[in-house]
Amino acid sequence: MPDLLAADEISRLSAQLDPAWSVSPDHKSIERCFRFGTYLEGLVFANNVAWIAERHDHHPDLLVGYASCRVVYSTHSAGGLTRLDFDAARAVDQLVGA
Amino acid sequence: MPDLLAADEISRLSAQLDPAWSVSPDHKSIERCFRFGTYLEGLVFANNVAWIAERHDHHPDLLVGYASCRVVYSTHSAGGLTRLDFDAARAVDQLVGA
Repeated sequence: MPDLLAADEISRLSAQLDPAWSVSPDHKSIERCFRFGTYLEGLVFANNVAWIAERHDHHPDLLVGYASCRVVYSTHSAGGLTRLDFDAARAVDQLVGA
Repeated sequence: MPDLLAADEISRLSAQLDPAWSVSPDHKSIERCFRFGTYLEGLVFANNVAWIAERHDHHPDLLVGYASCRVVYSTHSAGGLTRLDFDAARAVDQLVGA
């Protein structure tokens, strides 16, 4: 189990992600909302994120809305953010070419 | 656009669904949380619900968590619950044999 990240490390790793990611006020999760033209496009995106989740063995919450998908990472077993969350978020950014 | 349902109609239609569905306190949405053995099973379930959504042209919010999928129906364009929500929820119940 990786260590919980300190605030300065969270800041450093966040700066390496697409700026659309935000850190929750309690510093326990990061999230990004992706917008699409259709519901199905958002759902197909969610499937791609799930593929990444399986490869990383690290699974985000996915909120599929009308033409959007919000991706939320947290290392629940550690009680907050670890490098696993940022590694996976970077892989999701790569999906959309960020 | 179908009419918003009155409280008594919401009660009547809710009684036809699996009892795991709940009506939100403001009577504007219904939701049910489905639990699975794995993340991927929940994701495959979400895909099935999306298939129903396309067939009904009525799209729920889907919240895919670690081994769960919460399905939330509301007719946003009407500002609350209509028969579309209950028709789709019944179809989702049929997915799991309820």
